Amino acid sequence: MKDTRTLWWDPEHQSIRYIEQTLLPQRYEIRECRSIGQLAAAIRRLGIRGAPALGVAGAFGIALAASRCRERTPERFRASIVRSAGLLRATRPTAVNLGWGIDRVLNAMQGAEGVAEARQRALAEAERVFAEDTACCHAIGEHGALLLPDPCTVLTHCNAGALACSSWGTALGVIRSAREAKKHVKVVACETRPLLQGARLTAWELAQDGIPVTVITDSMAADCMRAGAIDAVIVGADRITGEAVFNKIGTYMVAVAARFHAIPFYVAAPLSTFELTGKPCIIEERGRDEVARIGNRTFVPEGVPVKNPAFDATPLDLVSAIITERGVVRPPYPMKDLMLLKTQ
Amino acid sequence: MKDTRTLWWDPEHQSIRYIEQTLLPQRYEIRECRSIGQLAAAIRRLGIRGAPALGVAGAFGIALAASRCRERTPERFRASIVRSAGLLRATRPTAVNLGWGIDRVLNAMQGAEGVAEARQRALAEAERVFAEDTACCHAIGEHGALLLPDPCTVLTHCNAGALACSSWGTALGVIRSAREAKKHVKVVACETRPLLQGARLTAWELAQDGIPVTVITDSMAADCMRAGAIDAVIVGADRITGEAVFNKIGTYMVAVAARFHAIPFYVAAPLSTFELTGKPCIIEERGRDEVARIGNRTFVPEGVPVKNPAFDATPLDLVSAIITERGVVRPPYPMKDLMLLKTQ
Repeated sequence: MKDTRTLWWDPEHQSIRYIEQTLLPQRYEIRECRSIGQLAAAIRRLGIRGAPALGVAGAFGIALAASRCRERTPERFRASIVRSAGLLRATRPTAVNLGWGIDRVLNAMQGAEGVAEARQRALAEAERVFAEDTACCHAIGEHGALLLPDPCTVLTHCNAGALACSSWGTALGVIRSAREAKKHVKVVACETRPLLQGARLTAWELAQDGIPVTVITDSMAADCMRAGAIDAVIVGADRITGEAVFNKIGTYMVAVAARFHAIPFYVAAPLSTFELTGKPCIIEERGRDEVARIGNRTFVPEGVPVKNPAFDATPLDLVSAIITERGVVRPPYPMKDLMLLKTQ
Repeated sequence: MKDTRTLWWDPEHQSIRYIEQTLLPQRYEIRECRSIGQLAAAIRRLGIRGAPALGVAGAFGIALAASRCRERTPERFRASIVRSAGLLRATRPTAVNLGWGIDRVLNAMQGAEGVAEARQRALAEAERVFAEDTACCHAIGEHGALLLPDPCTVLTHCNAGALACSSWGTALGVIRSAREAKKHVKVVACETRPLLQGARLTAWELAQDGIPVTVITDSMAADCMRAGAIDAVIVGADRITGEAVFNKIGTYMVAVAARFHAIPFYVAAPLSTFELTGKPCIIEERGRDEVARIGNRTFVPEGVPVKNPAFDATPLDLVSAIITERGVVRPPYPMKDLMLLKTQ
């Protein structure tokens, strides 16, 4: 099975390379970020997206800032990096991994003796974040694969695949690992309006790997379940709190339908997605045109408002299990167990 | 309140005029059908759509066939009309109203003395079907308006409005009648993938009438319900049997979400939509491109299959009430009561 890398450090050009996801499936294109501004723009337009990938992007972003910063005194250098971190962090307020990746690298730079060492430490830590993410996805995959019957059809929403991570994927990592273990797994991918990450990205990366996938509109999910065509749902997460899983808008609808049809609803996510401090979660509201316009056509009449929250919240009581790199957590998800897992 | 006509008979040109719905909301255009072939094509591409409108189109279609047929003997004339009826009937296999409208006019032509009288009878009956449909929508509206609290926000899926009927609408007819009765009603319209009738048509016709409407992607419906933003759901129907309501794909998903959130789920439909004979219902599967392509862009990778059923089935036990022109029917919807209503 191929193992697509989504973004990585280019040591020759001291830059970040990434697959520009807004162009898929029509065009596969590797782009380069040579500045924090370029990286922030790529993240804002969802050229790079997906919770774990944002963690890696945050980490490499700080390494990039450190590599490019021309300040010579440690104080000014530090202040410049912190400004870059702020800029990066503001691009996607809901994704907890982005801030987590940024903080991992900022912390690793603490106590460095001079600018050169700070740069080295930043890059080394960012590479560790990348490597850990890949290892993490494989661990999630192996734990999750045990939950799937053989044969089975798994419904997924949005893209929690290689393209949402450093590689391999979380929800799709489970599917890849199950297939490596010789299970016969098919996928039904919700197209995931408004930005169609399911149709564009999930279908693309599964087809690349030869994994059978069928695309449906989001509104068909319940009908497929009623027809007995779905054995399990697996989705990723952008933030998991003590109360709810925050993930792509539409996840909650699928969770409700899964509960109604007594189909297991699994969330696959690294522990870096857990945010157990009780900080309030801001749901990012994105632009009107993402809903109103598709391609070259406008579908919503002028003057008619739209809603476009990027995420919704699925209460934990609708979640059959959370698949993490340290194992599978089951209801009632006691806070102290989650905290323990996260800090071990 | 304006009362848009969707399709009508043009006596001067002996043709059918209709609003070409595939062009909305970007272009408002009245087109003409001078032959059954043109009408069948308009119905197939959904230039004319919506269960009650299809009933009216079926009726006018037979009148058109009768008006244009050049056969002089009653036998050949009749045979030609029956062929036209078959062609028209095959365009949309799920919508029961289409066949019903066709049969109404075929039956009215029975026993006519000569071709000229048959033509007259056909047109007179088609005009009656048109007038009855409008009266029917107003009656549905008035019965349904009583069910809505004041103020309230109603979620609807697809377009069961003036554009789906001769005028006024069924689900949107209830909203129009409630507003005529001075109730403060706002609408949340699901965009209704794949063909976006909610975004394009429901939003357009409500905006034309100054009724507040917000468009959401289909996947946001459950999230809006969870937020307490929805007081009731009202949808139309393409076919109501003793077991289920067949309506636009995605209706079932909304019904499941409404049940989960204890929100009333109403179906507004004329009795001509009831098909109580136990005939099996064929769910029309439409083309791949409706899901895979939007505007000028392809979103599903080549070679990846899609599903595209035009309708789904919502079991009657998820339906809080059916609003008909003869009043509101409530669970457990005993077959004999439904039959009685229909045949009265």
